Amino acid sequence: MPHNRFYIDKALNEHSTYFIEDEELHHMTRVMRQKKNDEIELVDGKGSLAKAHIASIEKKKAEVKVASITKEKENTRKFSIAIANLKPSSLELAVEKLTELGAFEIFIFPAIYSEKEHVSNHTKNRLERHLISALKQSGRLFMPKLTYTELTEVLKRKCFFCDLQKNATKLTTLLEKEEDITIIIGPESGWHEKEKKLLLEKATICLLSPNTLRAETAAITSGAIASQMLY
Amino acid sequence: MPHNRFYIDKALNEHSTYFIEDEELHHMTRVMRQKKNDEIELVDGKGSLAKAHIASIEKKKAEVKVASITKEKENTRKFSIAIANLKPSSLELAVEKLTELGAFEIFIFPAIYSEKEHVSNHTKNRLERHLISALKQSGRLFMPKLTYTELTEVLKRKCFFCDLQKNATKLTTLLEKEEDITIIIGPESGWHEKEKKLLLEKATICLLSPNTLRAETAAITSGAIASQMLY
Repeated sequence: MPHNRFYIDKALNEHSTYFIEDEELHHMTRVMRQKKNDEIELVDGKGSLAKAHIASIEKKKAEVKVASITKEKENTRKFSIAIANLKPSSLELAVEKLTELGAFEIFIFPAIYSEKEHVSNHTKNRLERHLISALKQSGRLFMPKLTYTELTEVLKRKCFFCDLQKNATKLTTLLEKEEDITIIIGPESGWHEKEKKLLLEKATICLLSPNTLRAETAAITSGAIASQMLY
Repeated sequence: MPHNRFYIDKALNEHSTYFIEDEELHHMTRVMRQKKNDEIELVDGKGSLAKAHIASIEKKKAEVKVASITKEKENTRKFSIAIANLKPSSLELAVEKLTELGAFEIFIFPAIYSEKEHVSNHTKNRLERHLISALKQSGRLFMPKLTYTELTEVLKRKCFFCDLQKNATKLTTLLEKEEDITIIIGPESGWHEKEKKLLLEKATICLLSPNTLRAETAAITSGAIASQMLY
C-alpha cells in the first residue's frame, strides 16, 4: 500500500488544486504525519492517479496541488456482488474484501429474513470509509459503486446465486464465458420461500463450496473466484 | 448451522459416554439453552457425526450419551494454507474462513518481516476456538490441523506462493491437475530478499489478483479458489 495515497471525492484534473478534509485529513496529518511540501498521490476512484504535493495544511483542510495524472482503463469483464443486509460488522468485512478483490458494484438489499430491513446512516458512513481505505490499500483506481436497492432490482441483471445443492454447477465453470455478472448472497437465516422461487426463475444457481459458508464468507469467496475468472 | 451441534476433543464411538466442559459447556447451556434429555449432535473433527442426548448437566460438566454415529470419508484432494504470523485479529479471521472453506491444514510460521515472531498462548487458544466454531458452523466433520512451524518446513511440501508479477500463472490454472497442495501467504510488510529467493527456488509462483490484497484477504482468497478447484 502506498502510504502517501489519499482519496479525493471529485474527478482529478492536471494542474488543479484540491482540498483534503475530515477523515482523509486526519489520516494524512495524524496517522501518516505528512507535512507541507510533501509529495503525495491522489486517487478519485474514477481511474485517475495523480502526483501532487501539499501546498498548505490548516486545521480543517489541506490544500494539495496536482502536477500530473495517469489514467487507467476499466476492466471490460466485470463482477458485482449483491448482499442481503447483514449485521454491520459482516457487511463491513465483505465490502472491504470485495473492494480489494476488484468488485465493480456492491448491492445491499433487504432480504425477508435479514435481521434489519434498512442499513443505518452510521453503517453507511462506515461502509464508505471501508471502501476508501480498501481502494487505497489495494492499489485499485476504480472505486466500487455501493448501491442500496431491492432484490427485484438486482434480478434485472444477469445473476448467479449460490446454493448448497450438490448438483449445481461450480461458479468457476459458469464464469468461463461471462463478461458482466452479479452474484447474489442471501442472509444468515437463509432465503424465504418466495425469494427462493424468484431466484430460481430469474437467476442461475451455482455451487460455491460443499460446506455451509457464513454469508460474509460466501460474499468474499464469490468475489475471489470471480476475480480469478474475469481478470 | 445445526444449533445443537457440539465439539468433543476425542474420537467418538457408538454407545459411549462423553463429558462436555469449559467453553463448549457454556455454549450448550448458556447460549443454546440446552436441557437434560435434549437430543444433540456431537462432532470430533475426525470425520464422525454422533446423535446423542444429554444425560445430566452439572455446574462444570454435562454428561452426554452417544446413540449412533455416521462417518464421513476425507477428501482425497486437499489444500493447506501457510500464513506468516499476522496480527491476532487477521489470523483469527483467516483461520475461521479457511476452516469454513475446507482447508486440510493451516500452518503459521514467523516471517522475517512479521510484526511478532511467536504466536502467544492467548492467541493460540483463541484460534482453537475459532476452528471449533467454524467447524460446527460449516457442517464439516474434519477439523483442520493448526500447525506452528517454520517456512523451511512448509517448503518441504508441494507449495505455491502468490505474487503480483503480472506474468505469473493464475492459481485456478495451476490447481487443475493438483491433488494435494500448500499455498503460502506472506506477511503484511512483504517478504525479505532471503525468503523470496527460497520461495522462487522451492515453490511455484502464482497470481491471485491484479490488486494488492491484505495478507488475510490473500489467505481467504486462495482458500476460496482452492476449494472450488479441488472439491
